[in-house]
Amino acid sequence: MNSSKEELLKVLETIAPFIHRTPVLTSKLIDEMAGCEIQFKCENFQKMGAFKMRGAMYAISKLSEDQKNAGVVTHSSGNFAQALSLAAKSLNVPAYIVMPESAPEVKKAAVRTYGGKITECPSTLQDREATANRIMKEKGASFIHPSNDMNVILGQGTAATELLLDHPELQIIVCPVGGGGLIAGTAISTHVLLQDCLCIGAEPMEADDAWRSLKSGKIESNASVLTIADGLKTMLGDVNFPIIRDHVSEIIRVSEQEIIAAMRLIWERMKIVVEASSAVALAAIIQQKDKFRNKKVGLIISGGNVDLTNLPF
Amino acid sequence: MNSSKEELLKVLETIAPFIHRTPVLTSKLIDEMAGCEIQFKCENFQKMGAFKMRGAMYAISKLSEDQKNAGVVTHSSGNFAQALSLAAKSLNVPAYIVMPESAPEVKKAAVRTYGGKITECPSTLQDREATANRIMKEKGASFIHPSNDMNVILGQGTAATELLLDHPELQIIVCPVGGGGLIAGTAISTHVLLQDCLCIGAEPMEADDAWRSLKSGKIESNASVLTIADGLKTMLGDVNFPIIRDHVSEIIRVSEQEIIAAMRLIWERMKIVVEASSAVALAAIIQQKDKFRNKKVGLIISGGNVDLTNLPF
Repeated sequence: MNSSKEELLKVLETIAPFIHRTPVLTSKLIDEMAGCEIQFKCENFQKMGAFKMRGAMYAISKLSEDQKNAGVVTHSSGNFAQALSLAAKSLNVPAYIVMPESAPEVKKAAVRTYGGKITECPSTLQDREATANRIMKEKGASFIHPSNDMNVILGQGTAATELLLDHPELQIIVCPVGGGGLIAGTAISTHVLLQDCLCIGAEPMEADDAWRSLKSGKIESNASVLTIADGLKTMLGDVNFPIIRDHVSEIIRVSEQEIIAAMRLIWERMKIVVEASSAVALAAIIQQKDKFRNKKVGLIISGGNVDLTNLPF
Repeated sequence: MNSSKEELLKVLETIAPFIHRTPVLTSKLIDEMAGCEIQFKCENFQKMGAFKMRGAMYAISKLSEDQKNAGVVTHSSGNFAQALSLAAKSLNVPAYIVMPESAPEVKKAAVRTYGGKITECPSTLQDREATANRIMKEKGASFIHPSNDMNVILGQGTAATELLLDHPELQIIVCPVGGGGLIAGTAISTHVLLQDCLCIGAEPMEADDAWRSLKSGKIESNASVLTIADGLKTMLGDVNFPIIRDHVSEIIRVSEQEIIAAMRLIWERMKIVVEASSAVALAAIIQQKDKFRNKKVGLIISGGNVDLTNLPF
């Protein structure tokens, strides 16, 4: 990682016309409960409802014109499929999305709404990779990984870049850890823009692969992922892991009850809809009060795409 | 009603230090669905989560010093009880809140959190009025009605004042109709600040007293109030009715299904938590597409205090 401030500003400038500069909110009551001052960077208000729009946008914008004409492909059943579809659409690039046959119809419909072309396949990782490979060959499309791609990582980091430019007083920045794209991008932005600011990750106890990876020094996987934070079930990759290892000072693990309580607190007090994965970061701050006491803290609200018919409260 | 622009600005200036200037949000997708351009004035982000903070604040600020020392009293089991408690607290004024014994414990707790002193009584209107009268005599406290008080009305109107100052291009402003305080204040602000802008009310079919009142020319009541929009069950009063009659161009009635669909749309697409009463206004716009087509519309989101354990979806 050899980024400079100029490079990070250039990344932001590249995608700025296509994304929202999301608002930063505060809550006096949550600050009182947590014992610190939190700036919430609200990516739930981002286009398609999550930070993933940033990474998808930057990765596509870095392709050559020929590559853009041939299109992009990814396999994802979640937010990144929608993000890549919408980002591609705004640059007039074809987007091929490999989704498991078993993916919920509502997610397929969302991808189609954003203009993505879906190819269904059996739900194993092998099948998904094989299908994506076939499309790469047939269409000449460029594969874009949801989290283990340096341009995706730099794009995701622009949420932190915006937050740190607005709030250079921050002492700690906290964000959830899933596949590692957001936390790696956040760590780069923090390290480059504000060297004295710590970058801390937050992870469900039930999918603590990143916590174990930092401990063992190699990428660990999850035997089971029984967490409500469904954006955080995936494991790290070889591109983002070294960045996380070098620039994330620690990962805090939280229980499912702590996640649900933090999610409810945000909904009730801040009146915003956030997904469980976002609540993981607040849960970590509330659990580790002593660590954050009286600190100026930045928190990345990763997104707000939830199934309202299936809430945990 | 003989307000001038200067007077309305003075009202806003008086309460501005004690309230939030709430954000105005937009949604491209909702605009496409509705066929018009909507500016959402988000009082769900107001202090204590609803516009009622504005009216309570202004009514208290208009009292003499002696009156402030003696305190204020109201009977309410809803948002106004919390609003008056918090507004009184910020001016160091005692607030006596008469609540029915049957009110949910969570609402009593919220009033206490904001510093209100609760007196419980049987739940009939007679009992509540008698209890409030007793407190007025014993404490010398001033009674402040939640919606039928000219200063409360002027205070509620500041949401529209802010919206119209920011968006002088608006052609129609829509807000929900409950006890009549918000719509009367909105009508005054609209009439004074932007004479060519229409003010339209939105009301549940199941509590359509205001619609019938405008038709009959006198204040009508509801035989039943089987609506999810629990802030809109109350009837108009003799102070706000003449204002509504003279300056609200029409009231649109919506079904319970339309309210729930609009509420879900706001939550899912705008990622904000709004109460059912607020969704009534969007439901009206969607129902009457022809009336609003291509218009620049302002919509007052009244509040975001909902019971997350009892949602309609």
